[in-house]
Amino acid sequence: MSDILVIGTVALDTIETPFGRVEKALGGSAAYSSFAASFFANPAVISVVGHDFPEEYMGLLKKRGIDLGGVQISDKTFHWEGFYEYDMNEAKTKKTELNSLAGFKIKVPEKHKDVKYAFLGNIDPDLQLDALSQLKNPEFVVLDTMNFWISSKKDSLLKAIGMANVLLLNDGEARQLFKTASLVKAANDALKLGPGAVIIKKGEHGALLFTKEKHFSAPSYPLENIKDPTGCGDSFGGGFIGYLAKTGNLNEANFRKAIIYGSVLASYNAEDFSLNRLKSITMDDIEKRYNEFRDIREF
Amino acid sequence: MSDILVIGTVALDTIETPFGRVEKALGGSAAYSSFAASFFANPAVISVVGHDFPEEYMGLLKKRGIDLGGVQISDKTFHWEGFYEYDMNEAKTKKTELNSLAGFKIKVPEKHKDVKYAFLGNIDPDLQLDALSQLKNPEFVVLDTMNFWISSKKDSLLKAIGMANVLLLNDGEARQLFKTASLVKAANDALKLGPGAVIIKKGEHGALLFTKEKHFSAPSYPLENIKDPTGCGDSFGGGFIGYLAKTGNLNEANFRKAIIYGSVLASYNAEDFSLNRLKSITMDDIEKRYNEFRDIREF
Repeated sequence: MSDILVIGTVALDTIETPFGRVEKALGGSAAYSSFAASFFANPAVISVVGHDFPEEYMGLLKKRGIDLGGVQISDKTFHWEGFYEYDMNEAKTKKTELNSLAGFKIKVPEKHKDVKYAFLGNIDPDLQLDALSQLKNPEFVVLDTMNFWISSKKDSLLKAIGMANVLLLNDGEARQLFKTASLVKAANDALKLGPGAVIIKKGEHGALLFTKEKHFSAPSYPLENIKDPTGCGDSFGGGFIGYLAKTGNLNEANFRKAIIYGSVLASYNAEDFSLNRLKSITMDDIEKRYNEFRDIREF
Repeated sequence: MSDILVIGTVALDTIETPFGRVEKALGGSAAYSSFAASFFANPAVISVVGHDFPEEYMGLLKKRGIDLGGVQISDKTFHWEGFYEYDMNEAKTKKTELNSLAGFKIKVPEKHKDVKYAFLGNIDPDLQLDALSQLKNPEFVVLDTMNFWISSKKDSLLKAIGMANVLLLNDGEARQLFKTASLVKAANDALKLGPGAVIIKKGEHGALLFTKEKHFSAPSYPLENIKDPTGCGDSFGGGFIGYLAKTGNLNEANFRKAIIYGSVLASYNAEDFSLNRLKSITMDDIEKRYNEFRDIREF
């Protein structure tokens, strides 16, 4: 029985970084986040792929116990082609072929409608809203997004944010959405829209958690080589909601632990292309790095 | 008796930020860092000012017990004019009038030559080297610098770094000096030059400590309004060495505490122009915010 419903993209990614290149590798917000969540809980994915989607990739997700019954198949798989320059801060898009994503309509299978945890990964906010409307009474909704939706579908995005318990976004997006240079102001503005917590992902600078009363700053893990940052935000989100679903405790103190687990997953993910690193780690690796995070912030 | 010797500039700063403007306000690396250090220890300053330097500013430093016997007086005071734009990340220089700083020769008074703690604040690295050569056997040398010296006096700077126990620099400077996008690599390269520890100051993203064996990440304090970031790096450095001189413990665990005290001083400093905020705080304020830092990083 699945305990987290993940809505997002499953993609084929062609990516070049200063450290290599992959062609039509497994990617997409739902792929990364469900895979990361699967270390802690039992995610089910709502998404779409094409007839060209490799069986091997399906197998990789299934092997982790991820329920793929909600993944529709039509046309060709969404394909993103991009690259990173030397500073690895920002993905530059070369080509986006929406393919089957263009006509995608959310259809939540009956058996997932009373799910408790929903992860609305990066995808069109109208699809996020549509997914939410099909759920009976989700107890805990985490919403992730990206700059593209802030500029192209702001109204829908604001509506979706208003229905989420936790908003995830990165620092550039927070500044863009709330038109301020101050992340503290952006977070306070975000909290006014409805979510009880806002998490700002800052890549190599860690992550910040804001609630009305408290503030938490998570360090980042000191990686000497970041091979490919694609999917780090999604892995973070998946690790975050996965740990919360596993522990069933939704207070601020547990959010902090969940953020560190999310950071652990994101840091491993950056060490290789696609899901190559995540598919080789174990719970022991995760706990080991979690303890390293403890030492990194101790004073 | 002074226990920390601070070498650096004492300046008149004319600064504009989105939150206001000050004209010929007290500034300079030695002013900020000695003031911050004075909460913990007894700094003495080696610097130069002009005959125009206001008695009121001298009085402000003296009142904190800072020994100004090593401050020479000649010509006019070094004057920096700059501004910050909306994102407050980088000071833009409008005018630099070196004045008395142009012909400044370091003369360490006899009574300070056997000082144990030396803080080489941001100033020409040849002056930092000259100061070091006049000290008998300093036990602990902290060196700060800035981008200007990395581009104009790299050889002298590298030599000075080789003689320091701790190198302080900000993230942009670390990337510039070691020609890498990775702060981890930059820090490892810096450690090879000689210092036992490297601290990378990241402004709103906190600070990182690297030694050969360990890594520490300090959070930043969530300020909603940063009025003027001028002197935050110097206040950080002063608080850092001040706490170490007070406690006399130079191990990595105590460096971590000293970094948090430095961060506390820097965060207060950003709340107002010049030394206006620092001159109004007490040890109680410092301890209160230190404890808030504990809570910010707890998980």
